[in-house]
Amino acid sequence: MTAPALPVDLFDLVIFGGTGDLAVRKLLPALFHRFVDGQIQPGSRIIGVAREGLDDDGYRAQIRSALNGAASKQGDQLDTFLKLVHYRPLDARKDAGWDDFAKLMGEYPDNVRVFYLSTSPDLFVDICQRLGGYGLNQGKSRVVLEKPIGKDLASANRINDDVGRVFAESQTYRIDHYLGKETVQNLLALRFGNALFEPLWNAGHIDHVQITVAETLGVERRGPYYDHAGALRDMVQNHMLQLLCMVAMEPPSSLSPDAVRDEKLKVLHALKPINETNASQLTVRGQYRAGVGEGQSVPGYIEDLNSSSKSKVEHSSTETFVALKAEIANWRWSGVPFYLRTGKRLAERVSEIVVAFKPVPHSIFTASAGPLAQNRLVLRLQPDEGVKLWLTIKHPGPGGLRLRHVPLDMSFAEAFGVQQPDAYERLLLDVVRGNPTLFMRRDEVEAAWRWADPILAAWAAGGESPRPYTSGTWGPSAAVALIERDGRTWDEDFEQ
Amino acid sequence: MTAPALPVDLFDLVIFGGTGDLAVRKLLPALFHRFVDGQIQPGSRIIGVAREGLDDDGYRAQIRSALNGAASKQGDQLDTFLKLVHYRPLDARKDAGWDDFAKLMGEYPDNVRVFYLSTSPDLFVDICQRLGGYGLNQGKSRVVLEKPIGKDLASANRINDDVGRVFAESQTYRIDHYLGKETVQNLLALRFGNALFEPLWNAGHIDHVQITVAETLGVERRGPYYDHAGALRDMVQNHMLQLLCMVAMEPPSSLSPDAVRDEKLKVLHALKPINETNASQLTVRGQYRAGVGEGQSVPGYIEDLNSSSKSKVEHSSTETFVALKAEIANWRWSGVPFYLRTGKRLAERVSEIVVAFKPVPHSIFTASAGPLAQNRLVLRLQPDEGVKLWLTIKHPGPGGLRLRHVPLDMSFAEAFGVQQPDAYERLLLDVVRGNPTLFMRRDEVEAAWRWADPILAAWAAGGESPRPYTSGTWGPSAAVALIERDGRTWDEDFEQ
Repeated sequence: MTAPALPVDLFDLVIFGGTGDLAVRKLLPALFHRFVDGQIQPGSRIIGVAREGLDDDGYRAQIRSALNGAASKQGDQLDTFLKLVHYRPLDARKDAGWDDFAKLMGEYPDNVRVFYLSTSPDLFVDICQRLGGYGLNQGKSRVVLEKPIGKDLASANRINDDVGRVFAESQTYRIDHYLGKETVQNLLALRFGNALFEPLWNAGHIDHVQITVAETLGVERRGPYYDHAGALRDMVQNHMLQLLCMVAMEPPSSLSPDAVRDEKLKVLHALKPINETNASQLTVRGQYRAGVGEGQSVPGYIEDLNSSSKSKVEHSSTETFVALKAEIANWRWSGVPFYLRTGKRLAERVSEIVVAFKPVPHSIFTASAGPLAQNRLVLRLQPDEGVKLWLTIKHPGPGGLRLRHVPLDMSFAEAFGVQQPDAYERLLLDVVRGNPTLFMRRDEVEAAWRWADPILAAWAAGGESPRPYTSGTWGPSAAVALIERDGRTWDEDFEQ
Repeated sequence: MTAPALPVDLFDLVIFGGTGDLAVRKLLPALFHRFVDGQIQPGSRIIGVAREGLDDDGYRAQIRSALNGAASKQGDQLDTFLKLVHYRPLDARKDAGWDDFAKLMGEYPDNVRVFYLSTSPDLFVDICQRLGGYGLNQGKSRVVLEKPIGKDLASANRINDDVGRVFAESQTYRIDHYLGKETVQNLLALRFGNALFEPLWNAGHIDHVQITVAETLGVERRGPYYDHAGALRDMVQNHMLQLLCMVAMEPPSSLSPDAVRDEKLKVLHALKPINETNASQLTVRGQYRAGVGEGQSVPGYIEDLNSSSKSKVEHSSTETFVALKAEIANWRWSGVPFYLRTGKRLAERVSEIVVAFKPVPHSIFTASAGPLAQNRLVLRLQPDEGVKLWLTIKHPGPGGLRLRHVPLDMSFAEAFGVQQPDAYERLLLDVVRGNPTLFMRRDEVEAAWRWADPILAAWAAGGESPRPYTSGTWGPSAAVALIERDGRTWDEDFEQ
């Protein structure tokens, strides 16, 4: 019942940071699934690259044990797949190994070349310069940049400038795996494949939009990085703004990469500024304290930070939670708030977009029919993917006309018995295909920072500490107040 | 999971024609189901009345054997229910028995009185006059009139005038069981309980509406009646126009009886006339010939007619099939055709309303995504009830963005494990409750005849015979041409 999987062109995919978490837990399993489905042909190669002194067999053993844990492990196919996997030890800042690496690449001069930079961003420039030095940026070469791309507009520009001296913008794929999610694809199909939604998709009919990205985990081992970033940089500036753009964009004239990204860019440009004049009304920062996480008692942020870092601190003004009210100043969305919230150590792991429609203007029903609820379209990205439309129907049965609010499943994956693919499966093959529709163009990243920077500046200028919240709750109560004072409520119907 | 069933006031329901098909197959089972659900309290009575010389026990035996065939037969409850059932032999045109009947009624002077006239309409006046003569039209008395109410405007007016001399309009319940169907109730809930549909419910977004009422049976024993009526009088003028009104009416200010019926009336008044000038373009008549019916070879209409009638004919100009294109001349529906078709001995037994939305104005998808289909809301009334919305979603899975057209179930009765109630269950209790919302007001019946009469006159003046069609098909090919020349197609996706 799945759409037939068409093989992609032969490729060499080089993963810098090949022994890292993302490579082992996400990228290799994604490639294996695409291999099992017949999309990756013999003659393609997957080349792990990192500082560890491994050989092909050592790396394959690592990958084998990681894939054995995966759900779909066909013995024979795993062996065949691992033959495509190679490893080269390399240090971005040292010469050793690069000649050998370049020779390996030269063996398949016609393969599409994808360089996936799953490393600290301060290595991006070194890696790109060396790739350029060996001429590996020529022809069908592409570079994939993982977030974070900078920590503000200026640093993002530096990275983009430096990478841009080696790879053209058309070769540069800034990945945001939220855009590869099935649900985001389905949002495109629903909005633009039906005549039903687009006429309602505006301030005349939509009351507000909520985007929640809630994690139950704390900062874990990412403490030292995270303490320099915070939730706004880590989640809002990239993932959540991208989701907001997909909801809010005007219909592009086609799904061609620039048509879609032009529309997203327009949304980013139309975001109302949040700065010193209004940040205290429109944003709430929080930082978790000790409490409950995944059923166990857990320490607070400072303790987590000190346990993952050599230097000990007593205080941090980094937010692990942010809630904010964004507005888009254009005809379509004037007056429709987009409430965003994200945080660590929250009550549940869930990522959802809720499009809340306006109430019916007038009820024709009697009080005994029961209350009328607002229609909501709920796009869920985590932990499972799905789209539900909350509708009012007649309560079935012979009684009088009583109403009932029910969720309609609009994703149908279950009905088709299809496993939801991981976002990386789609995105990695899109890079090979040379389709950057679901990747961020440079101007998008810049526009997102241009909106985020004044918020960060306002917080710094205000000098307030993030509000404490107990681990295992939904964040500081000020985040509830942010939406409740508009007469609205965060959606927490997650069991459905 | 059903809405709780509230008991209704004590009542006496008198069924004239109590031994007839409708009473035995529909009305008594409906009452029994409501009794089992606790809505009919001891102290209420159901009194069968007909010419047959039965007593209470003889009638109860008839009803018992009919109800034993029903799905829900709780032994004890059936016994208790049958104690509420009585019988009196009566002839509308003879005095005998009426004194006794009136005495029986007088035993429960405070009960709501419902006189259900399930007889030939030429007895309506006699029955009403006698009821009036005994003062049984006083107080909480109601009369229920089964169709047909006349065979044209003039005869309908005569019946309504005559009945109206005994029962006030507020006491008169003209029943159309199509309006009691769960699906029609759900249409009200969907249209007016959600903010999603009403903004799209107009000529800007709806391409056309189709209403199909297809039977597989022939005229059977109704031949002599049917040959004087035909499909337009038997189905279109009442049931199908009522369904059309429920789809097309403006939002009433409440579900109060007159608010709803005022809106339906406005639709009937706004129907564009079909008459001698355009009937040949806008209507198709048919008459079935021998062919296949329910898997067996079956004779044609004339043979059926002769086998159910004493007088033999060689020709009849009565239509057993009609298809027509109606239009509503108001702002909401200007230019949106309502295609209606009904017939006997068609390929399938199905009653459906299809609301076909306009196609998306522009496809942003590539050809490989697959064709875009139009959204359709399908309201099914027979053989099973349900509402489906056909939507375009992303084909689930890791491939590119391919589209899939899927039906979303919006009725949910299955999910709730609720048996769909029969329309008569709702309507009979509505009469007891004194709620005429789902019954036809006199002016509605008149407006419907005012639209139908010129069609009948045009056919008579044209002198054309109905087009023959083979039993087991979808009617004459001219009915297909009627819609196809507008670039549209009859919906025949009934297996879904």
